[in-house]
Amino acid sequence: MDESAIISHIIKSTDILPKPIIIGPGDDLGMIVSNGMKLLAGVDQVIEGRHVKIGEEPEKIGYKAMARSLSDVAAMAARPLGSLATAAIPGSWDQDKTIRLCDALRETAYRFEAPLFGGDIAVLAADQEHLVVTVTVLAEPPSSGRLVTTRRGAVEGDGIYMTGMLGGTIDDDGGGDHLEFTPRIKQALELSSILEERLHSMIDLSDGLGVDLKSIAQLSELSAVIDANSLPIRDDVTIEQAIQSGEEYELLFSATGDVPDHVLDLPITRIGTFITDHAIGSIMLENDGPVRDISNLGWQHRTGGQ
Amino acid sequence: MDESAIISHIIKSTDILPKPIIIGPGDDLGMIVSNGMKLLAGVDQVIEGRHVKIGEEPEKIGYKAMARSLSDVAAMAARPLGSLATAAIPGSWDQDKTIRLCDALRETAYRFEAPLFGGDIAVLAADQEHLVVTVTVLAEPPSSGRLVTTRRGAVEGDGIYMTGMLGGTIDDDGGGDHLEFTPRIKQALELSSILEERLHSMIDLSDGLGVDLKSIAQLSELSAVIDANSLPIRDDVTIEQAIQSGEEYELLFSATGDVPDHVLDLPITRIGTFITDHAIGSIMLENDGPVRDISNLGWQHRTGGQ
Repeated sequence: MDESAIISHIIKSTDILPKPIIIGPGDDLGMIVSNGMKLLAGVDQVIEGRHVKIGEEPEKIGYKAMARSLSDVAAMAARPLGSLATAAIPGSWDQDKTIRLCDALRETAYRFEAPLFGGDIAVLAADQEHLVVTVTVLAEPPSSGRLVTTRRGAVEGDGIYMTGMLGGTIDDDGGGDHLEFTPRIKQALELSSILEERLHSMIDLSDGLGVDLKSIAQLSELSAVIDANSLPIRDDVTIEQAIQSGEEYELLFSATGDVPDHVLDLPITRIGTFITDHAIGSIMLENDGPVRDISNLGWQHRTGGQ
Repeated sequence: MDESAIISHIIKSTDILPKPIIIGPGDDLGMIVSNGMKLLAGVDQVIEGRHVKIGEEPEKIGYKAMARSLSDVAAMAARPLGSLATAAIPGSWDQDKTIRLCDALRETAYRFEAPLFGGDIAVLAADQEHLVVTVTVLAEPPSSGRLVTTRRGAVEGDGIYMTGMLGGTIDDDGGGDHLEFTPRIKQALELSSILEERLHSMIDLSDGLGVDLKSIAQLSELSAVIDANSLPIRDDVTIEQAIQSGEEYELLFSATGDVPDHVLDLPITRIGTFITDHAIGSIMLENDGPVRDISNLGWQHRTGGQ
């Protein structure tokens, strides 16, 4: 089954959204209005055997599930308010293991100022061995009247930037489980505060550089050019690995004008420019052999792992 | 594994909630404050083989998953704002079946004025055969300054009432899959509007009369007496079945003073009284043989099915 086709169907089906909805499916979080107040919400799943390896420690699964959803809050430069979680627990798990998972979810939520205030736990049948955890996050726009940052706002000529480095979360054993990342919530709020309306678009790097940039480019009706020589890549990681590495959870954004080279403790690197020279959604990589389109390189098109 | 023990652990762990949270785990929905605005949210799971039978039609699963979460909005006398959904799809499902599930979720959400504005779809490994669907609902307090109705507000002497009838959703084939219920959102808002501050507590009837009343009684530090002769039971259903039938999704509430015998199209029946004569959480059934405590009769203590 082609997940992208399903997602396209969902986005198309909800193209005309009823009144309280401002941002619908297709961005990192949706946005709704209640009595004039804007509220953001989103939900993500972590499935054993897909996003974490079979038999992973419950503490690590709980951390990853919560941090992954919180990274979507960072991607919109929003401020977390709270979270909800569900767990469908394998029949083979005992009470201790389940409580360790719940505690990890709660502690991670608290650490990133998105306290857990509801959820649901159910035990799966004995022959169902794979844990399914979901985390819903609620968030609000950053204070002082600033807007959230979506995937739709990129403009021709925008510089394309990313925080941190590519390959930063690839495990030393190459397992690619990406358990140690930190959602860039503070950095995103700081960026929004510094750049204000010059911060045009943002996403968190979760599916791979090409696929994630393609999402911004398509929604903003642009193409992009990326300079391979400028990519901030960890020493022991190849350019191919770096481009395909999905779960980096760094911020990928576009802006006009001057952009600082750090935000809080994190380096910022300019890696390219949004242009209109190519087909909408094309992400052209230069200076790594012949120029090529990397817009399909990323998680969605791999078969195994995470 | 004892799910009740896990849930007790979670409620205890979140006993002291950080500032934005007003209602934490343990009620039908949680409540949070953003810039002075109150917002409610909750999430529930529907698992194939547990809440719906294996191989159920995707339209029915989608309806049930959405309606079940919306019933929690009714239980708080809140007004739905929007919804998010996730699905972990069995490897054996094809694209058509998956789209039918997504469409059912979206159409049901729209019908009950909780438009779907985000979610996540992932395909399970080939050997994982059971669908897991979650629905998150967002809601706001009813208009004109009225409060939401929780499980904590019952008072000694309150009449105990329910809408509709017990056994109303039991399938004709006795399968007990409870697919046809309607979340009582409009009726709950109307009740809140009529009774105002005299509506002291409410829950939706999802785990069984005894278990659900026990939840209100425990949180309100009361016991209750129920008159078996007054219970509104469908003709072909025994009193034992009626008491244990969980997924009725009728409103169960307590109030002081006069209560009308209908709300919109739905009958209201007084079935008992909150008292302080017995141990906190006891639900004593009278007029069905010797007086007995039914506070443990309900879904949680059955082993099979839904």
